[in-house]
Amino acid sequence: MNEKYMKEAIKEAKKAYKKDEVPIGAVIVKDNKIIARAHNLKEKKQMVTSHAEIEAIHKAAKKLGTWHLEGCDLYVTLEPCPMCAGAIQQSRMQHVYFGAYDPKGGAIESIVRLYEAKGFNHYPYTTGGVLEEECAQLLKDYFKEKREKKKQEKLIAMEHYNG
Amino acid sequence: MNEKYMKEAIKEAKKAYKKDEVPIGAVIVKDNKIIARAHNLKEKKQMVTSHAEIEAIHKAAKKLGTWHLEGCDLYVTLEPCPMCAGAIQQSRMQHVYFGAYDPKGGAIESIVRLYEAKGFNHYPYTTGGVLEEECAQLLKDYFKEKREKKKQEKLIAMEHYNG
Repeated sequence: MNEKYMKEAIKEAKKAYKKDEVPIGAVIVKDNKIIARAHNLKEKKQMVTSHAEIEAIHKAAKKLGTWHLEGCDLYVTLEPCPMCAGAIQQSRMQHVYFGAYDPKGGAIESIVRLYEAKGFNHYPYTTGGVLEEECAQLLKDYFKEKREKKKQEKLIAMEHYNG
Repeated sequence: MNEKYMKEAIKEAKKAYKKDEVPIGAVIVKDNKIIARAHNLKEKKQMVTSHAEIEAIHKAAKKLGTWHLEGCDLYVTLEPCPMCAGAIQQSRMQHVYFGAYDPKGGAIESIVRLYEAKGFNHYPYTTGGVLEEECAQLLKDYFKEKREKKKQEKLIAMEHYNG
């Protein structure tokens, strides 16, 4: 079940890849139905909040006509950052499932364990590592391609310089 | 200087109060100029991300045409929650000044010290307690008024029941 919805999040991540955005995708599920699908659009929109999770939260809130997302589950291909983990908490999301861990920014288990701090109003359930390899591979491919492009550009620039 | 800009943030908080929103306001300053003013609009917009800080970050990004807010300072009347503290960090904000502390949700010093976690790309400077009393009083007034309205509604409902 978890994998079925994570596969849909991966489809979204691939859409981000095609737009030359860091490939991260998310879906929100309520009563066994996907009510929102979104992917990272930070560079296209030039907005820090346009991470996949928040784009999905906005779509779900618009659909339901309320910011209250109780009873909703979010599936995202990468461990949420503090901003997104906070937004997930603010929206009273029931459960967050994530694929790859993010040692450089993850706020569920990696850099900080936000939901372990005491005193908040709401604590979502969390499950990490759902289809982890597939989610991580997409990110690796993307950054590898980016590095190769940069190398290529440098080579062309040098040819021009020497030519 | 800090107080001058916090006063502008308080003006924004008062606008939220008038709209029956939790009175929190924010401004963003770059090169000694206010480039964005905003207040909490969470209930009006039914969006968890419509906290004053993120509304201000969106306005600043639109104005500058980029999500990069390096060299910008944010003034907000209440200590940011994890979502907003994360967005501030994501946007590479230089310094965040806040008024009142938030023992129920603050992510700078109160519930969690987000910027003390190691491994992030960017760490904003922080200053808390700027015009603290004035910022806190506004929130106290708002919640007191809300409680009194509720009491009044209950009394009227009982009168109807007994009448």
